[in-house]
Amino acid sequence: MRARFSSLNPGDTMTDPVRIAITGAAGNIGYALAFRIAAGNMLGPDQPVSLQLIEIPAAAQALEGVMMELSDCAFPLLAGLQGFDSAEEGFKDVDIAMLVGARPRGAGMERKDLLLANAEIFSAQGRALNTAAARGCKVLVVGNPANTNALIASTNAPDLPPENFAAMTRLDHNRSLAQLALRCGGHVNDFQRMIIWGNHSSTQFPDIAHATFRGKPVTESVDKGWYRETFIPAVQKRGAAIIKARGASSAASAASAAIDTVRDWMLGTPEGDWTSMAIPADGSYRIEPGVFYSHPVTCRDGKAEIVQGLGCDAFARERMEATDAELREERDGVSDLLD
Amino acid sequence: MRARFSSLNPGDTMTDPVRIAITGAAGNIGYALAFRIAAGNMLGPDQPVSLQLIEIPAAAQALEGVMMELSDCAFPLLAGLQGFDSAEEGFKDVDIAMLVGARPRGAGMERKDLLLANAEIFSAQGRALNTAAARGCKVLVVGNPANTNALIASTNAPDLPPENFAAMTRLDHNRSLAQLALRCGGHVNDFQRMIIWGNHSSTQFPDIAHATFRGKPVTESVDKGWYRETFIPAVQKRGAAIIKARGASSAASAASAAIDTVRDWMLGTPEGDWTSMAIPADGSYRIEPGVFYSHPVTCRDGKAEIVQGLGCDAFARERMEATDAELREERDGVSDLLD
Repeated sequence: MRARFSSLNPGDTMTDPVRIAITGAAGNIGYALAFRIAAGNMLGPDQPVSLQLIEIPAAAQALEGVMMELSDCAFPLLAGLQGFDSAEEGFKDVDIAMLVGARPRGAGMERKDLLLANAEIFSAQGRALNTAAARGCKVLVVGNPANTNALIASTNAPDLPPENFAAMTRLDHNRSLAQLALRCGGHVNDFQRMIIWGNHSSTQFPDIAHATFRGKPVTESVDKGWYRETFIPAVQKRGAAIIKARGASSAASAASAAIDTVRDWMLGTPEGDWTSMAIPADGSYRIEPGVFYSHPVTCRDGKAEIVQGLGCDAFARERMEATDAELREERDGVSDLLD
Repeated sequence: MRARFSSLNPGDTMTDPVRIAITGAAGNIGYALAFRIAAGNMLGPDQPVSLQLIEIPAAAQALEGVMMELSDCAFPLLAGLQGFDSAEEGFKDVDIAMLVGARPRGAGMERKDLLLANAEIFSAQGRALNTAAARGCKVLVVGNPANTNALIASTNAPDLPPENFAAMTRLDHNRSLAQLALRCGGHVNDFQRMIIWGNHSSTQFPDIAHATFRGKPVTESVDKGWYRETFIPAVQKRGAAIIKARGASSAASAASAAIDTVRDWMLGTPEGDWTSMAIPADGSYRIEPGVFYSHPVTCRDGKAEIVQGLGCDAFARERMEATDAELREERDGVSDLLD
C-alpha cells in the first residue's frame, strides 16, 4: 500500500514531526487513537506528528477510509500520513510504535491458542521493529495479552533496548482512579499514587495502599471490606462490564490510556505522582527478570524508573505473586518464540 | 436516567465548567466527539467541561457504556458527566448544545419522509432548548438535513437568539482544504479563505475564488477544469466515498469538524482567515432571510459575522442560487413545524 496523503512540504515554521506507527489502525481502538494523536493530544500543541498506519491486508480498504477521514480533519499538526499492510515498511524510522492490533479470541479458541496466535504476530513485529524502527524507538503494546506480547516483541528486537518496550496498564490505573472518585465523592484529580501491579488481566493487583486523596491516605476514606470485595474485582472485571453495557469492548478509553502512557513516558510524569506501566522486571519488589510486570514508575527524559522502597504487606505480596505466576506461565507457553 | 458520574467537588482550583449537551451521544459521531471534548480539544487546556449526554431510550444502555468509558479516562478537565433520555432534562442550563443525533434514512424511506421525521425531532429539541438551556446557549446542528434542522430548532426556540444557532458545514470546508493540499502538494496550513456556500448536501458550493495558497490565489495553482470537474464533485460526494471505503459514514472527521466549529465560534477565527458556518441568511450576497445558509464568517467574542464584499462571478452565482433553492424547497416541506 502506498501513501495516500503525504505532506511534501510541512511549511518552514514546522519543527520536525515525530513519526508514530499504529498497528490495527482501522480497528476500534486505532480509530479512537489516531485522531486524538493527530489533534496533538499525545505530544502537545507544538509538536507535529507523522502517522504510519498499519493494518492487515484484509483491512486495507477500511484503513484507506480512516486515512481519508484523517486528511479530511485538516489537522494543523498532522505533517504526514501513510498507510501500510506490512510491519517492516510501516515501522520505517518510527520514533514511537503503538502495537494495538492483536488477534481477538475466536469461537472455540482455547486461551493457549490465542496466546500462540498473538505470540507469532508480536514476534514478527519485534523483528520488523528491530530492522526498521529508529534506534531510540519507544514501543507501547496495547494488544492483548499485552505483557507477554511486549516480552515477545522485545525479545525479537535484540538491537533495541528492552527498556524501550512497555505494555499498557494505564487503563486499569485510570479505571481505579475513577472508581475511587465515585466512592469518595471527589474528582480524579484529587487522587495520586495509585498502583497497578503485574499483568493486564484479571489477576492484576490494583493497590491503594500508597494512594492519596487530597494529600491524605485513601485508606482513611474507604474501608478495607469495600476495597477488597468491591473495588479490586470491579477494576479487574471492568472490561467485561463495558462490553456488557456497550455491546463492544473498550475503545476510546483504551486509546486515551495509551495516549496518557506515551505522553507521560515522553514528557514526564507529574511532580509528586507516578503512573503504572508494565516494564521489564529487574528484581525490584522481588519480581525477578524475565517478564513485563506492571510497576509504579516515574518518567523523566524518556526513561521510566520503578518507584523504590514502597512497603508491601502480606495481602499485597500474595496478589503480586499470583499475577507474577500467571505471567511466568504465559511466558512458558510461548517459550519457542523467545529464543 | 440519572447521572452515573458527577463530580461533587471539582476542586478549588478549577474554574467553572462549561456545560455541553450532546444528542446522539452513543452514536458513532457522538462517541468520537465526547472524548475529544472531555480531553480539552474544543475549549482549550484550561477550561473544565461538564457533559450532559442525551440519547433515545433505546440507546440508554449503550450511553451508560460510553459514560463508563468517559469516567475510565480520568480526564483532568471533565468536571461532570450526566446521561439523559429526555432532551428537556439534558439541555438544562447548557452553554453549548451539539445536536448530533438524527434519524438516518431507513429502507424504502422517501427523502420527504426523512425530512419530516427529523423535523419533528428538531422541533421538539428546539422547544426543549427554549425551556431549559442557558439564555446565551450556542446550538450547533450536525444531524442531517443539518441546515433545515437548525432552522426548525431555532424557530421552535423563540426565546433564544437565532444567531446562536448554526448548522455545520465545516466538514465540507475541511475536506476542501485536504483536497487542495493533495492537489497543490502543500499542507492544509498553507491554505486560507476557503468558502462553502449553502446547504450541507450535494448542492453545496465549495468556492475557491477567494482562497489562498501560501498567500497567493489558489486559482494560480489549479486549473479551472480540475476545479469544476473534479474538485467540486469530490467535495460534494466525499461522504459517499468515505462510506464506500470504511463501510460506515464519516464519524471522527465529522466530530472533528464540530469541534473546530465550536472552538472558532467561542474563541474566534484565526487572524486573516475565516471559516464556513450555516447561519441565518440576512440578505447578504442576495440570499434572503428564511433559511440557514453556509457563508464565510469570522468569529469574535462568540459572534459569527458574515464576511462582506466578496465578488461572485456568474459561475458562482448560479451555484449559490441552486443550493439556496434546495434549502427553500426543504423549508417548504416542513412548513407546518415552522409556525
